[in-house]
Amino acid sequence: MRTRFAGVALALALFVPPAFAQAQLITEKKFFTLPQYTTQGGKSIKNVRVGYETYGKLNSSGDNEAAGYWDAIIGPGRAIDTDKYFVVSADTLANLNVKSPTVGTTGPATLNPDTGKPYGSSFPVITMGDSVRVHKALVDSLGVKKLVAAAGASGGSIQAMEWAAQYPEFVERVIHVIGPGLDIHPYVIGLLDLWMMPIKMDPNWKGGDYFGGPEPNEGVAQALKTVTLTALHFGWAEKVHGYKWAAEGKNPADAMNNLFAIEDSLYKTGQARAGATDAAHFVWMAKANQLYNLEKQQAQIKAKVLFLPSKTDMVFPPELSRRWAEKLRAQGNYVELYEIDGTSGHLDGLFSIAKVGEQIKAFLTK
Amino acid sequence: MRTRFAGVALALALFVPPAFAQAQLITEKKFFTLPQYTTQGGKSIKNVRVGYETYGKLNSSGDNEAAGYWDAIIGPGRAIDTDKYFVVSADTLANLNVKSPTVGTTGPATLNPDTGKPYGSSFPVITMGDSVRVHKALVDSLGVKKLVAAAGASGGSIQAMEWAAQYPEFVERVIHVIGPGLDIHPYVIGLLDLWMMPIKMDPNWKGGDYFGGPEPNEGVAQALKTVTLTALHFGWAEKVHGYKWAAEGKNPADAMNNLFAIEDSLYKTGQARAGATDAAHFVWMAKANQLYNLEKQQAQIKAKVLFLPSKTDMVFPPELSRRWAEKLRAQGNYVELYEIDGTSGHLDGLFSIAKVGEQIKAFLTK
Repeated sequence: MRTRFAGVALALALFVPPAFAQAQLITEKKFFTLPQYTTQGGKSIKNVRVGYETYGKLNSSGDNEAAGYWDAIIGPGRAIDTDKYFVVSADTLANLNVKSPTVGTTGPATLNPDTGKPYGSSFPVITMGDSVRVHKALVDSLGVKKLVAAAGASGGSIQAMEWAAQYPEFVERVIHVIGPGLDIHPYVIGLLDLWMMPIKMDPNWKGGDYFGGPEPNEGVAQALKTVTLTALHFGWAEKVHGYKWAAEGKNPADAMNNLFAIEDSLYKTGQARAGATDAAHFVWMAKANQLYNLEKQQAQIKAKVLFLPSKTDMVFPPELSRRWAEKLRAQGNYVELYEIDGTSGHLDGLFSIAKVGEQIKAFLTK
Repeated sequence: MRTRFAGVALALALFVPPAFAQAQLITEKKFFTLPQYTTQGGKSIKNVRVGYETYGKLNSSGDNEAAGYWDAIIGPGRAIDTDKYFVVSADTLANLNVKSPTVGTTGPATLNPDTGKPYGSSFPVITMGDSVRVHKALVDSLGVKKLVAAAGASGGSIQAMEWAAQYPEFVERVIHVIGPGLDIHPYVIGLLDLWMMPIKMDPNWKGGDYFGGPEPNEGVAQALKTVTLTALHFGWAEKVHGYKWAAEGKNPADAMNNLFAIEDSLYKTGQARAGATDAAHFVWMAKANQLYNLEKQQAQIKAKVLFLPSKTDMVFPPELSRRWAEKLRAQGNYVELYEIDGTSGHLDGLFSIAKVGEQIKAFLTK
């Protein structure tokens, strides 16, 4: 049975490794534009544009299947079954990968129609709630009348919960994968500050007004390195890198510039990703994450909620999900919680998502 | 009973908050110089100098009691009883706080006697084992014939274990507090790389050859901020900072430069400490920590070992201590392990050390 207008809105991870970002190229990207949008902070932005993908159209050839972070659980017959559900996946505002042609996202790098120049530091503060409000206009435009579930990992889990808080009658379920619960913990506010710091230290940063001149690419590479290490875990480092040197014959004990493999590899991965990433978008997005706090909106949430934290997550440890699961249960929400096994920390919400496919599938019928 | 020549060598924490560093001023500092020292890597350094303090002399007035990170456990009648033991506490090579007059430490900021200029990038790579070899010469010069225990927190715990590996007949016990065990885990090699990164991003860094010009103070402040956050824990952030804004009336949602209290406070603490810290010493010391690996020397260690990890430590989680405790037990070492309770992560090895005072006291007679 197809339920084309009872969609699943997917709000995917914010800071993701390149292999996953590239996989997105396989699907056909569309773009949605709002002529005018007013942020939660009361600032007006013209021509707000986000990219999106849909899966699960009446297409029997199967060539429109999902490909992305969650390939393992989205597709015909999979946990999020595109034979059954119409799935929408949309870019956030100020998406990191703005330099990729497949990403539609309004942010500091966008040309301000009033000046013809990039916004830079004049771009307003945005929240994850702002992205969700734009996405609501998008799914309305597609004729969707109700969401079977809002689902996402990390930054996507935040958007999924924002959906439930802002549109309680519209959202039946939330699938909150490697998420913070209903707020960003103060420790993670500090961690996000560390993530931004290398960009702000880059002499090319200029407070976000670098457009037209040299860009803070070194800061972006170092910022992405920082995100990746803190999003991973001891088990991953042991399995993937161990005590290997970065280059044969270059013992790290012999010279200050001789590195271990883990240092070198994380930096090079950061460098490779930096090409598609805009520095200001990174900083605006980190700020949006810091501002996430639904504590006062908790009572509005009516959705059934599935928490799927990763056992070894050091960004949003399972304890946070357990804490918020308890609070939602106490106010009468239907809540399930399963921990994802793995050694990749936060990123097991992407790498190991197949392990909880059955739980997701069952939850969609609860 | 005094055992003046059966000393306890204290090797204290490497990256510590300012309150603790300042407390050291209370005790009288002495200095020890070696005319020539050859590093484990085979490089020669002239006039190697380290600062040190001793406690527990024949002084009945009690004014020579220990004051420092471990004030709570060192002193007359305390866990490390200065009525009973002669205690030596010495600075490492390339100590961070080289700009403090109470710290004696040879490192990149030292004048090279051959050139009359600071070593800068020409200073050789050093290891934690090098500091211990210099300390051995120091305690020999004091007439100490045997160590009742080598004890230390964090970087100090590493030195304590190096003592046991390099001088197995000389060291009866190791007290390894918030330590890594017998090696630096690959994940922490990556973490140390993150700690150094802000210094290396500072345009004043110049590969370590900034002496005589503007110094990379902003990098040092950001590096110290990074260390402090990663050495703490979610529980600490919740208790100390919560969701407070850095400045009243400046809502972080209103402007990109309006910060949360945790961001602002960690940065200001970093700035305050940066004045006493040399950037190159920070980088050389981080490298020395990355290189710590006694896996191949494990069999040489004969000492009884007391592991005291902190329950909430995210730098050296208790799992690492448990793992190495098991391996040492398996080769016949006497081993005890207790976890320190607290919400301050790695830093509970300093803040909460009094909680394991009884265990330390008892272990010294085992």
